[in-house]
Amino acid sequence: MTRLISSATGLLISTVIMAQQAIWGVPQFINPEINHDNTVTFRLYAPDAHSVYVDGDFIPITTTIASNGKEIKTRRPGMMKKGEDGIWVYTTPDPVAPELYSYRLNVDGLTITDPGNVFQIRDVGTVMNVFLVDGDNADYYKVSDTPHGTVSKVWYHSPTLGTDRRMTVYTPAGYEKGDKHYPVLYLLHGMGGDENSWSELGRAAQILDNMIASGEVQPMIVVMPNGNVDMQGAPGETSLGFQAPTIQLPSTWNGMFETHFPDIVEFVDSTYRTIPEKSHRAIAGLSMGGFHSMQISKEYPDMFDYVGLFSASVVPLEIKDSPIYRDFDRKLATQFAKHPRLYWIAIGKDDFLYQTNVDFRKKLDAATYPYEYYENTDGHIWRNWRIYLTKFLPRLFR
Amino acid sequence: MTRLISSATGLLISTVIMAQQAIWGVPQFINPEINHDNTVTFRLYAPDAHSVYVDGDFIPITTTIASNGKEIKTRRPGMMKKGEDGIWVYTTPDPVAPELYSYRLNVDGLTITDPGNVFQIRDVGTVMNVFLVDGDNADYYKVSDTPHGTVSKVWYHSPTLGTDRRMTVYTPAGYEKGDKHYPVLYLLHGMGGDENSWSELGRAAQILDNMIASGEVQPMIVVMPNGNVDMQGAPGETSLGFQAPTIQLPSTWNGMFETHFPDIVEFVDSTYRTIPEKSHRAIAGLSMGGFHSMQISKEYPDMFDYVGLFSASVVPLEIKDSPIYRDFDRKLATQFAKHPRLYWIAIGKDDFLYQTNVDFRKKLDAATYPYEYYENTDGHIWRNWRIYLTKFLPRLFR
Repeated sequence: MTRLISSATGLLISTVIMAQQAIWGVPQFINPEINHDNTVTFRLYAPDAHSVYVDGDFIPITTTIASNGKEIKTRRPGMMKKGEDGIWVYTTPDPVAPELYSYRLNVDGLTITDPGNVFQIRDVGTVMNVFLVDGDNADYYKVSDTPHGTVSKVWYHSPTLGTDRRMTVYTPAGYEKGDKHYPVLYLLHGMGGDENSWSELGRAAQILDNMIASGEVQPMIVVMPNGNVDMQGAPGETSLGFQAPTIQLPSTWNGMFETHFPDIVEFVDSTYRTIPEKSHRAIAGLSMGGFHSMQISKEYPDMFDYVGLFSASVVPLEIKDSPIYRDFDRKLATQFAKHPRLYWIAIGKDDFLYQTNVDFRKKLDAATYPYEYYENTDGHIWRNWRIYLTKFLPRLFR
Repeated sequence: MTRLISSATGLLISTVIMAQQAIWGVPQFINPEINHDNTVTFRLYAPDAHSVYVDGDFIPITTTIASNGKEIKTRRPGMMKKGEDGIWVYTTPDPVAPELYSYRLNVDGLTITDPGNVFQIRDVGTVMNVFLVDGDNADYYKVSDTPHGTVSKVWYHSPTLGTDRRMTVYTPAGYEKGDKHYPVLYLLHGMGGDENSWSELGRAAQILDNMIASGEVQPMIVVMPNGNVDMQGAPGETSLGFQAPTIQLPSTWNGMFETHFPDIVEFVDSTYRTIPEKSHRAIAGLSMGGFHSMQISKEYPDMFDYVGLFSASVVPLEIKDSPIYRDFDRKLATQFAKHPRLYWIAIGKDDFLYQTNVDFRKKLDAATYPYEYYENTDGHIWRNWRIYLTKFLPRLFR
């Protein structure tokens, strides 16, 4: 057997044989390197390049004042320096705070993913590398040595839409072996996202595993459907083939997602061991998913006792003439007359939707509708949506 | 709402705001373009680059004769040409046959994934872009408009190894709603692979969906475990964090995977609606997974009636002194004395394991052990393993 192993390893250096055999290469560098002091080092072997830099959300935001007095917020890319060995290197000047980060490299003007890091995440049409710095809230995003739930890609039939659609379902550790019934959180993505967004970018399974294991969160089922009714599922996962993602699909805001939502609840309650009651259902979403959560929860006021709006598009305009969007104020009054247990709003101060959220809260205040509010820094980014999930989950099903 | 959408779209061109908001970019090109005549065009905007080429398994193999008389097989990369607009273009000279292909770009000596294609697959330590040309066997690899099974990432406990481990489980369309019991195929990956390999690179879920829908294959559960007992799961999916993949782990060939295998069968039979009988269990694998299938099926001769060895490492040497690998011939005799319904061997003529498979078949022939054999061209590549799966599946559970 040693002989066989040697043969296989020999493939790595034989370009001739590689034409006929699997590619079993490994990257030249394991990137990035998180140093003992939590500074982070990036490397790239590119002897012929003239300019290489790394850009990503690990770089602190720099605020400058423009000549017109306006604040300008930018990230200054990390300029890599070439050594005599042809290896470009950049180390952050300061320790990087615990978080899940994404980044890309730029080589002579071309933005690329890092050949030294196989861990990548797609956000709409952008593929980025990721790395994680341990500690604080980021410990919720790690895979820990705890019992793990199951993450499934499941297809359901929607009678309303007349089609099969794909969703991600998290069932907590122990679900398969037991006969216990669980509450359900419906967790919705933003514009351009899909049923993979919360499990990939949002680290939802890791957050649930960790917070259930620590006792902070009740064991629950989490259902992550696809909010674009023009799509049966994520790009590449439907009969449309490897079609490129787009930021906005024709039926993104036409009310059909909200209209068909009871099909999802019906499927989930008839397929999983749920507790099929308002008191054991929550709905939350980010951005467009927050808009959906707001619309769905007020449209079906007996369905959800817990509502979470994360950086939500809260402007309840009547668009595309869907019955879903009509009579918003009256439906909202009905929803709050039924005393939902939690109406939770979260947004960052730099979010471009911040002011509309201020206005929405004024509307709730004026009507004396009770809600909880969480505000932090930064804007419309996944870092915030992961944080909001960790703040929202412990409040559910108590 | 129109106003909100405009604000969001406005993000795409504002680098200042992007420091605080999600990146919703889309690639400049949708790559590759599969033309009407099945030639394929690749594009890259890189005005400052000096040399750009595309390399991948869609390029036909060229055989030349070296001065020593030996055949040399290579693929000649597609040299891209720069237009005045700074866009590099390459179109294949001939139509590309139906298949799922992988490729990468090389810019001035640096091998990168294609910024114009968000669809990527990791094979051990190599990330490649993929595209699919319709037709023939490749139609099995597409997501079609058929009922879809569920693909789950599930953790099981192994008492033998004393740890929790991750597996991929495919349950056929209709599993959730019915009460039917199903046969089970255990499908094993190769060295350096993991529990994601068959569903990602092998398109196992698409193949099963399509072949079950067409009636060619019996509905079945497919269990894809992780064959590296040093790992609880795939790189990035365990408490080791975003650790780089390696081709060979310390315990890759020490018999522990085979020893613990009954834990997997016990978990599956107690968790899913299986038919827990030898006549309704199959085991198959590629390369190292073929070795595992050979060892496991002979070690537990009452467990599997169907065995598939795809480009398998069939040399049954006694390595690392595991009891699993002792007395191979005697155990094989016991296995065949119990008349397994199918012992299926497949390999390509260019596979580096070809001769060892010839020798293994001679051994079977000499002992008059019945088996079926499928041979094709090419070598140790995923294209072949997908083909072997489509040939093997229709033979099961008849």
